[in-house]
Amino acid sequence: MSEVYADPEAMSAAQIESGEIFAPRFDAAGLITVVAVDHETMAVLMLAHMNETALRLTLEHGEVHYFSRSRGKLWKKGETSGERQKLVEIRVDCDQDALLLLVRRIGRGAACHTGRASCFYRKISGENGEMRLEFIGDDPLFDPREVYGDQ
Amino acid sequence: MSEVYADPEAMSAAQIESGEIFAPRFDAAGLITVVAVDHETMAVLMLAHMNETALRLTLEHGEVHYFSRSRGKLWKKGETSGERQKLVEIRVDCDQDALLLLVRRIGRGAACHTGRASCFYRKISGENGEMRLEFIGDDPLFDPREVYGDQ
Repeated sequence: MSEVYADPEAMSAAQIESGEIFAPRFDAAGLITVVAVDHETMAVLMLAHMNETALRLTLEHGEVHYFSRSRGKLWKKGETSGERQKLVEIRVDCDQDALLLLVRRIGRGAACHTGRASCFYRKISGENGEMRLEFIGDDPLFDPREVYGDQ
Repeated sequence: MSEVYADPEAMSAAQIESGEIFAPRFDAAGLITVVAVDHETMAVLMLAHMNETALRLTLEHGEVHYFSRSRGKLWKKGETSGERQKLVEIRVDCDQDALLLLVRRIGRGAACHTGRASCFYRKISGENGEMRLEFIGDDPLFDPREVYGDQ
């Protein structure tokens, strides 16, 4: 349970959905799901997670921080790649278990570690059984090997 | 592990991120996170989850199905409210643990059970310590009490 925010468990559904109290619902691992979109086009850039510290740092400094589940640690977006995100606005969904971040991209404009603007650069094509992923033409804005090395 | 899709655990990061094989990464609960957007405006409508059955039914029938974590069961979008979603396209993110659904809204156009087009109808306003949620003016398209009764 958060020490900073209201406790959603102590609130009614109506209070959570229709009220003005921010009561983010962190999951059992202490994380909340975050969708980042470009603040001008509203295009979806990436899906990530925040713990309470990442949310606090993002709100305090206006620089987006996430929590990396794969690395198990706090992650300031763009710390390695330079592809930072400035916070413009945070929206919360009806049951307050997801956040929508409107961000301004700093750097080359790549939200994805593959160098692309968006992490969603492939679509499913073909029928069930013969499904394949097809690249939608969101080409890399930089070569990730120059940033992260050969992985 | 899925019986239908490729196993991401048996693939390299490069295969998962740069390949054409659809290998959705379901979590320990058998779920994958889904962001639904309007196929024309690309505006974010809602965040939800799918299990393998929901994904299969969505692909087979072109009608979006989710898995409700709160009710613990498969959920055909709009079954009660009439606010159905027709599948237009599915995109997958770099590490294949999130899906972006492009949908066409059927009914009054409300993705949210509160009757609004989007679940993200409030934003955080004010400073840390004095934060409040502010409605952004996405007014309900119907009265949810008429659909779900007084809850």
